[in-house]
Amino acid sequence: MDKAAHNIYPVNELVRKRWSPRAFSEKPVEEEKLNSLFEAARWAPSAFNEQPWRFIVGRKGNEVYDKIMQSLVEWNRQWAGRAPVLVLNLARKTFSHNNKPNGVALYDLGQAVAFMILEAVNQGLISHEMSGFDAGEAARLLEIPESFQAVSVTAFGYYGDPDALPRDMYESETGKRQRKNPGEIVFGAGGRPVV
Amino acid sequence: MDKAAHNIYPVNELVRKRWSPRAFSEKPVEEEKLNSLFEAARWAPSAFNEQPWRFIVGRKGNEVYDKIMQSLVEWNRQWAGRAPVLVLNLARKTFSHNNKPNGVALYDLGQAVAFMILEAVNQGLISHEMSGFDAGEAARLLEIPESFQAVSVTAFGYYGDPDALPRDMYESETGKRQRKNPGEIVFGAGGRPVV
Repeated sequence: MDKAAHNIYPVNELVRKRWSPRAFSEKPVEEEKLNSLFEAARWAPSAFNEQPWRFIVGRKGNEVYDKIMQSLVEWNRQWAGRAPVLVLNLARKTFSHNNKPNGVALYDLGQAVAFMILEAVNQGLISHEMSGFDAGEAARLLEIPESFQAVSVTAFGYYGDPDALPRDMYESETGKRQRKNPGEIVFGAGGRPVV
Repeated sequence: MDKAAHNIYPVNELVRKRWSPRAFSEKPVEEEKLNSLFEAARWAPSAFNEQPWRFIVGRKGNEVYDKIMQSLVEWNRQWAGRAPVLVLNLARKTFSHNNKPNGVALYDLGQAVAFMILEAVNQGLISHEMSGFDAGEAARLLEIPESFQAVSVTAFGYYGDPDALPRDMYESETGKRQRKNPGEIVFGAGGRPVV
């Protein structure tokens, strides 16, 4: 299914083609494609070059995958279990050089994951991020040290059959994408955000 | 200057070519290129499609620019004042649908800014993000409502002359880029982050 951005101004093809499908095929993801996803993440910028991002990779059939699945909210469990790869995205809470709280750790993790999901487009893969999971449960099941925060889960894989989705998900899958207008998010001289 | 990523695995050209120079030319950025940057940001994914990102755009010579400059730490002021565009990146702290705290607002803002800086590469522009600024001061000067958090500043423009940089910045500008190895950030079956 093509749900390319209905963009107003020109943008690069990776951004234009990316969206967040739920209709995953069960086709596995090649190891070399996964390598390219994490390679993209590596080159994201970060404050003090801290690179606070960490990724725990579950592949369908292994224990890590099952534990990530177990931490998802019910709604996400309904579709995510078809995806061949689930990645738990973690942020290191403090800076390595002084152990002080890193106020942009989540922000920088977001950048790294954004690089990954655009590289996924480059690799012919689809991705869908979830914040709907129990971070505490994930931390417990995967023995994540206190110094890291589990922030999101990304499903990666190939596009499958939208007709296999439950009805409400099918509607979201095939519906029009919604975005704020530029004027609602960009403010210039004298402007300030009020939305 | 070319400081493309010395990547181990293949990645797309936008990620490969992006880096964070400080040697900005004073050449202004065309309006249509700025439009494409914000267009890219619009299409980032976000929890509940909240799109918590807001951008306050300063152009060299206007009041917004001067106020953003004034909020920067001294180190950043030394180089950022040559950049023709400074964008203050804000996150809406709560969800619109229920006014509850959005725990991934900064994460989602990071994704939107990541989309922008990759689109900048596509537009032949350079970018450099800064967390080194006084968010309270920026909020005061730009009258930012309490419901938003100023998280970072991005400088956009064209590449200039690295020889014009102070000595210590020149060394950073021309030095080798450092990144953790994949094994330091990616964990599979039985693995957990310990770095």
